[in-house]
Amino acid sequence: MTNLGLRRSVVLQRRPRGEPVADDFAIQEDAVPTAGPGEVVTRTIWLSIDPYMRGRLREEQTYAVAIQIGEVMTGETVGEVIASAHPDFAPGDFVAGARGWQTHSVTQGDRLVKIPKSAAPLSAYLGVLGMTGATAYAGVTEICKPKAGETFVVSAASGAVGSVAGQIAKRAGARVVGIAGGPDKCLWVQDSLGFDDCVDHRNLDLRRELLAACPNGIDCYFENVGGAVQAAVFDQLNPLARVAMCGMVSQYNEQTMPPGPNLGFVVGKRILIQGFIVSERPARMTEWRAMAEPLVADGSLVYREDVIDGLENAPDALTGILTGRNFGKLLVRVAADHS
Amino acid sequence: MTNLGLRRSVVLQRRPRGEPVADDFAIQEDAVPTAGPGEVVTRTIWLSIDPYMRGRLREEQTYAVAIQIGEVMTGETVGEVIASAHPDFAPGDFVAGARGWQTHSVTQGDRLVKIPKSAAPLSAYLGVLGMTGATAYAGVTEICKPKAGETFVVSAASGAVGSVAGQIAKRAGARVVGIAGGPDKCLWVQDSLGFDDCVDHRNLDLRRELLAACPNGIDCYFENVGGAVQAAVFDQLNPLARVAMCGMVSQYNEQTMPPGPNLGFVVGKRILIQGFIVSERPARMTEWRAMAEPLVADGSLVYREDVIDGLENAPDALTGILTGRNFGKLLVRVAADHS
Repeated sequence: MTNLGLRRSVVLQRRPRGEPVADDFAIQEDAVPTAGPGEVVTRTIWLSIDPYMRGRLREEQTYAVAIQIGEVMTGETVGEVIASAHPDFAPGDFVAGARGWQTHSVTQGDRLVKIPKSAAPLSAYLGVLGMTGATAYAGVTEICKPKAGETFVVSAASGAVGSVAGQIAKRAGARVVGIAGGPDKCLWVQDSLGFDDCVDHRNLDLRRELLAACPNGIDCYFENVGGAVQAAVFDQLNPLARVAMCGMVSQYNEQTMPPGPNLGFVVGKRILIQGFIVSERPARMTEWRAMAEPLVADGSLVYREDVIDGLENAPDALTGILTGRNFGKLLVRVAADHS
Repeated sequence: MTNLGLRRSVVLQRRPRGEPVADDFAIQEDAVPTAGPGEVVTRTIWLSIDPYMRGRLREEQTYAVAIQIGEVMTGETVGEVIASAHPDFAPGDFVAGARGWQTHSVTQGDRLVKIPKSAAPLSAYLGVLGMTGATAYAGVTEICKPKAGETFVVSAASGAVGSVAGQIAKRAGARVVGIAGGPDKCLWVQDSLGFDDCVDHRNLDLRRELLAACPNGIDCYFENVGGAVQAAVFDQLNPLARVAMCGMVSQYNEQTMPPGPNLGFVVGKRILIQGFIVSERPARMTEWRAMAEPLVADGSLVYREDVIDGLENAPDALTGILTGRNFGKLLVRVAADHS
């Protein structure tokens, strides 16, 4: 067996209390693994950093099994095949998978998806063409179902999911209003994404700003943040509104959860509130990628990436996404595109 | 024109603060109206008393327009035609409609539905075969969608809606657990309705009782009460659970609403929470009545009525239903079946 060199991995050293800090993680080194029967060895190029990862650091399970102390952090990746004992993969192939926070990995070939070489940039397969894009697509088309002329509001509007959700709703003919943190993000949401309006949630009077942006009330809400933003939006929902509950990032670092809305309005206004994760809808993933690839290629679907270099900076990147420090889809460049 | 005698009506005299009291209402008398073109005059036999009526006494609108001071209280009724200028109706016909808290009414014939004379008792058309039965049917089949082997929980289980909802879920093969107030109601829910278990919400440790009754967690919840019962049930919802939000009667007398659940679990467990009213689903009403009539006739669909005599006692009946004083579908007998 050839010695392929050293692998570096980020493992969970202790469970964060509140905001994750560097010492909650540790870097481990071992030999790059070799491929057993049906297996493929990859080197990681891009690692996706997403808010849901905070949930996996908790003792109690949410929709994913908690990461154990000493385990490698999980995460979606794009990489290059460097060794293969699987007939469908050859060295030089680019693949997407959930290979975690590490420079190299080995896995059964059927857990990897091949990326076409001539299409969009590799990194797009973790964002607009990957899990976050498909999440936006599933939430908008299966839950929010915006109709032409309706008002669609999305929080974390400049983020990986929110930016795509709003663009899909816009294509459906809705009036699209983003909520984002700070004037730079709001400007980009309006000018580059083409949303009809964007409200800065740092404004002192969020409710009034939102009312001004949504004079006909809110028919659809794509929820990414929770907290005060959620309260303001819920107050302005129209009868028969649909709420896609994608995330509540504002509270992911909380040790104890604050109370939420009294649900009387759900009865009175016949509201639909639905949580979802796209990995339970694999058909949507495939469908979305096929639809979105040409839109990315011709520039009509806009996306923005926020790139952090170096696997060792992944923990800090996670801390940043939980406080809105990133601007666009957050990615860690683990290695160069070319070996 | 024949003088048909006096009509008595219950009007709203002032908006209740908290629990409605007798002095919030007044009895008014005027002449029984006559039928203009296309109109039908009825004498009311049965008046339905339902928790949603409390919402109409509020200044602010919910899904129905608020009742104004001096207006006759609205409500579903069954009555007998005593004069008709509409070709489809003749004196002696029995009809269902929303003719309000009054002994007689006049309305366009197309706002009335004829009741077959030979089928179930007239009163059943306000309960198991009427709005409350159809509400249960819509909530269970469109939102909860219980599958065989799943656990279905319904609050206010001995009430007009809850008792039917549980029986429909039972027919779908679910394990059905009721929540009701007091041992008599719980006994009836288990013995007569055939639910698998019933938890008394007056128990000191509701959460533990519920856990014992639902060892595999809760897949479907049909919500009628809110408050502490809601909190206990929500804590035990399984991933992908469906919650039909029919009512939250525990808070209908509140002046200010208490906070509700933090909605993080909706994301984490991909929960569906949906408010609904059956009047927006007229097809369900027709469908349900056709399905349920034979089941009522052969006794396989069980229902219980709680009858209060006399229109003047309708306000007190409303106060009673808001605190769970009734046992079964609450009805006011405004007049005898036979004229």
